[in-house]
Amino acid sequence: MAVLGEKQLGPDALADAARRLSNWDRWGADDQVGTLNLITSERRAAAARSVGTGVALSLSLPLDATGPSAPPRGAPLHFMTATGTDSPLKLAGGASFTDDYVVMALQCSTQWDGLAHVYYDGHMWNGVPAAEVTAAGAARNGIEHAAGRMSGRAVLLDFVRLANAGRPGGEVPRRGLITAADLDAMCAAQDVQVGPGDILLVRTGSMAVYRESGSWREFRGQQSGLAFDCADWLYEHEVAAVAADNATVELAGYYSDYFVPLHMVAIRDMGLWLG
Amino acid sequence: MAVLGEKQLGPDALADAARRLSNWDRWGADDQVGTLNLITSERRAAAARSVGTGVALSLSLPLDATGPSAPPRGAPLHFMTATGTDSPLKLAGGASFTDDYVVMALQCSTQWDGLAHVYYDGHMWNGVPAAEVTAAGAARNGIEHAAGRMSGRAVLLDFVRLANAGRPGGEVPRRGLITAADLDAMCAAQDVQVGPGDILLVRTGSMAVYRESGSWREFRGQQSGLAFDCADWLYEHEVAAVAADNATVELAGYYSDYFVPLHMVAIRDMGLWLG
Amino acid sequence: MAVLGEKQLGPDALADAARRLSNWDRWGADDQVGTLNLITSERRAAAARSVGTGVALSLSLPLDATGPSAPPRGAPLHFMTATGTDSPLKLAGGASFTDDYVVMALQCSTQWDGLAHVYYDGHMWNGVPAAEVTAAGAARNGIEHAAGRMSGRAVLLDFVRLANAGRPGGEVPRRGLITAADLDAMCAAQDVQVGPGDILLVRTGSMAVYRESGSWREFRGQQSGLAFDCADWLYEHEVAAVAADNATVELAGYYSDYFVPLHMVAIRDMGLWLG
Amino acid sequence: MAVLGEKQLGPDALADAARRLSNWDRWGADDQVGTLNLITSERRAAAARSVGTGVALSLSLPLDATGPSAPPRGAPLHFMTATGTDSPLKLAGGASFTDDYVVMALQCSTQWDGLAHVYYDGHMWNGVPAAEVTAAGAARNGIEHAAGRMSGRAVLLDFVRLANAGRPGGEVPRRGLITAADLDAMCAAQDVQVGPGDILLVRTGSMAVYRESGSWREFRGQQSGLAFDCADWLYEHEVAAVAADNATVELAGYYSDYFVPLHMVAIRDMGLWLG
Repeated sequence: MAVLGEKQLGPDALADAARRLSNWDRWGADDQVGTLNLITSERRAAAARSVGTGVALSLSLPLDATGPSAPPRGAPLHFMTATGTDSPLKLAGGASFTDDYVVMALQCSTQWDGLAHVYYDGHMWNGVPAAEVTAAGAARNGIEHAAGRMSGRAVLLDFVRLANAGRPGGEVPRRGLITAADLDAMCAAQDVQVGPGDILLVRTGSMAVYRESGSWREFRGQQSGLAFDCADWLYEHEVAAVAADNATVELAGYYSDYFVPLHMVAIRDMGLWLG
Repeated sequence: MAVLGEKQLGPDALADAARRLSNWDRWGADDQVGTLNLITSERRAAAARSVGTGVALSLSLPLDATGPSAPPRGAPLHFMTATGTDSPLKLAGGASFTDDYVVMALQCSTQWDGLAHVYYDGHMWNGVPAAEVTAAGAARNGIEHAAGRMSGRAVLLDFVRLANAGRPGGEVPRRGLITAADLDAMCAAQDVQVGPGDILLVRTGSMAVYRESGSWREFRGQQSGLAFDCADWLYEHEVAAVAADNATVELAGYYSDYFVPLHMVAIRDMGLWLG
Repeated sequence: MAVLGEKQLGPDALADAARRLSNWDRWGADDQVGTLNLITSERRAAAARSVGTGVALSLSLPLDATGPSAPPRGAPLHFMTATGTDSPLKLAGGASFTDDYVVMALQCSTQWDGLAHVYYDGHMWNGVPAAEVTAAGAARNGIEHAAGRMSGRAVLLDFVRLANAGRPGGEVPRRGLITAADLDAMCAAQDVQVGPGDILLVRTGSMAVYRESGSWREFRGQQSGLAFDCADWLYEHEVAAVAADNATVELAGYYSDYFVPLHMVAIRDMGLWLG
Repeated sequence: MAVLGEKQLGPDALADAARRLSNWDRWGADDQVGTLNLITSERRAAAARSVGTGVALSLSLPLDATGPSAPPRGAPLHFMTATGTDSPLKLAGGASFTDDYVVMALQCSTQWDGLAHVYYDGHMWNGVPAAEVTAAGAARNGIEHAAGRMSGRAVLLDFVRLANAGRPGGEVPRRGLITAADLDAMCAAQDVQVGPGDILLVRTGSMAVYRESGSWREFRGQQSGLAFDCADWLYEHEVAAVAADNATVELAGYYSDYFVPLHMVAIRDMGLWLG
């Protein structure tokens, strides 16, 4: 864990990484799902067969007005069009229905970044021009192509425990930088290996910051997150997707010359899913 | 398969079934998820371990403007707030983002009916007053309580094949009534058993009607669906959830005295999930 | 102008005023527009003929994301569905179109309170049960009945000038209570009379508080507004509508026993329009 | 009235008209309201003073789910967030509130086309690049600049009466082409003159088509509307705005080479308001 500072990646670091880690054309010129291709049927079947206790957990936040939601996106709006006392639908036999609508930013609460979400130099994943995302939606790389494919083996690495030298129940780190070396250290401490097609979950503990403050600004400002050198680690381990309990997966704003370099290389060049 | 007619359930049929099949208090007075309790961790683990090829399929329709969506609910509205050419978000290092919102009826496209969706005689699942669903939402029995719990073993029964006497590629039945005896016949023909905690999927073929006509009216009018006597079958087999590729799971409007009796007893009295 | 305190209206003040000032049935049992009936065609024609310079001014705030909007209502959301670069509509001859949607709370920015907006004791304007406003909308007293009728003579009374003893450019009063006597004083100072069917506009200057703070809480907390005794004054002068450049027209929260007594009597009992 | 056919405007007609009738720079390079500049304070005052009976009429359709609304735009969605029985807002003294939201296409029901609504050859009104309308809205020529300025003298010309040779109560014409000569004929028949700054209202009767069919397709297909030669007439008479009770003001689709040539020249080149 490095101390937070005004560090620079340097002028060529991003372009070099983009070249070194690019998965463009790896799964064909028409591919729209990137690293989800690494979750093969065999790996998914093996993951299923490895299930132990069968306890199911939702990793989602409640999708409600408490967010978190990055400004200027607002919290979801929920509207009831039929309630337990006012139902315009009365059917033969006495049944009534409740009904509702939602208005929401698709990048609020717990969500995956689609491969059309981030672009630079006029291109997004697999070399598709950014201009293919118009007012009518994403003509290519839309998140709908991932439907049904985001299932497989997941590995949870615990940064809070690492930051407390293995002691459970310790302090949640603030603005902790999680480097590739930290990922290795967590794997070693937990005696677990991350391999091809795995979904990596990193516990930063930063959601506690949001729960205390209720403020997205605090949440993003105080979160821990991945360093840029994790890009190589994720590429080498052939990780299919990465999610974390923080605001932006990576430690946004750590470098002075690139605000979210991991998003740039991961989503656009590697086709890697961030959640 | 019965011929479609002006059949009546009769004055006591619904109340009798509600009493006979009630699961109120079975999982405690505070339970809000009903038959999802039947998917125990052991059953979920066993389901996972039984995975064969590991091929993943999405059973969802695209969530887009083509619906289907029951009037007066409209198709989802999708709005881009940042595109590949117009992005108000320009971050250090050159990254741009796309962003979007959705406005949609929560009972459109492929969806599960929450246990607060149907009520009669002033009550919904587990004896909760319907008035607990107000303009502010469902204070109890909201679908958020099901988060993470809808995973387990699923069995697909093929009504199209049954209706064509086992021959694949036959005609899609129109307004076919799927009785409890038909469920048994499909299990026998497919050499499969439905047991406690299973999620039952019924292929009616009726989505083809929608694809041809693009009309919800045609879709609902021509669909095949479950008969009311399936309620007992589902109760006895301890099914956790039922979904079908039709408009309303059951054959809505088959009986003259109750428009959707299976919804009434299944959702309110059994706490059974319909999808 | 009274000093702000923990004043009470007292147990019978509201009921007495409601009885004394009630306009129920004055324009028939079916009336849904209340005091707009006071703007007769003759008065409207006279108002038009009295126009001097013909300068047109909009009294509306911009309807945009800067509000103000009382929580939990959010600011309007504006969505472009076709832009100057992305237009799905290309017509013969080369014309393209821009297009957009809005999602907004109907009680945000500058707005009139419809007669179905406030109720107490289970009834709204003209004795209509409050239950007629359901999840499907207002079956009676909806604001649509006012379409085209809100035009006539308006009189602007300047409370900022009064509070500064007639000197222009003075301080904007904070939490100034505007009493019936103040209304008379402003009429006298400005040499203007308020009569039947007039639309009364009161300049409180409080919008400046919002402009400085950007906070609804500050806006409402520091606004100046009408005292409850204005109800009688407005009734006696047969005013058709009242609007002010503050958060809630009246000084909400001035009395300890009624938060918005003027809203209660004006909207429900007098059928008076507040803007 | 010409017979409807496959008439062509010809290759230079639109460019010639755009040049001949252009108002670009007439009110300065920064102007964003076009022909509304023609409604001077003097003309507005004169209009007000000419008021006779003072009867007020709303020319708006109800803003509700019955439209009309041009596909793919949908009808407005109206959501109640507090009703007469379910109000989350209970204030001291017993007041309750109803509250609601709307989601709607801004080009539905009765509406004015803003000067940013139509563009061709990459430019909109006053030579502003169309690219100034982005996913964030119209940076220039937005309709907000017209706030408060759309008031003045209006003249109603009755095409239904003209088509029935002056007899009231006749048939509503279908796909009637309203030419500049027809405008003159209506002025003569009604003994009225249209002059600088006037708002022209044309009664086509076509709303009856919509009321009968409820179909936008029928409404647009069967409407009567203005011919392209009206552009010169409107320019010469210095009309400030034109509105009609039809789908698109002009007879869209009458010419084979330009679908809406009057929109193109009126909105982009003349800065003329169509409603």
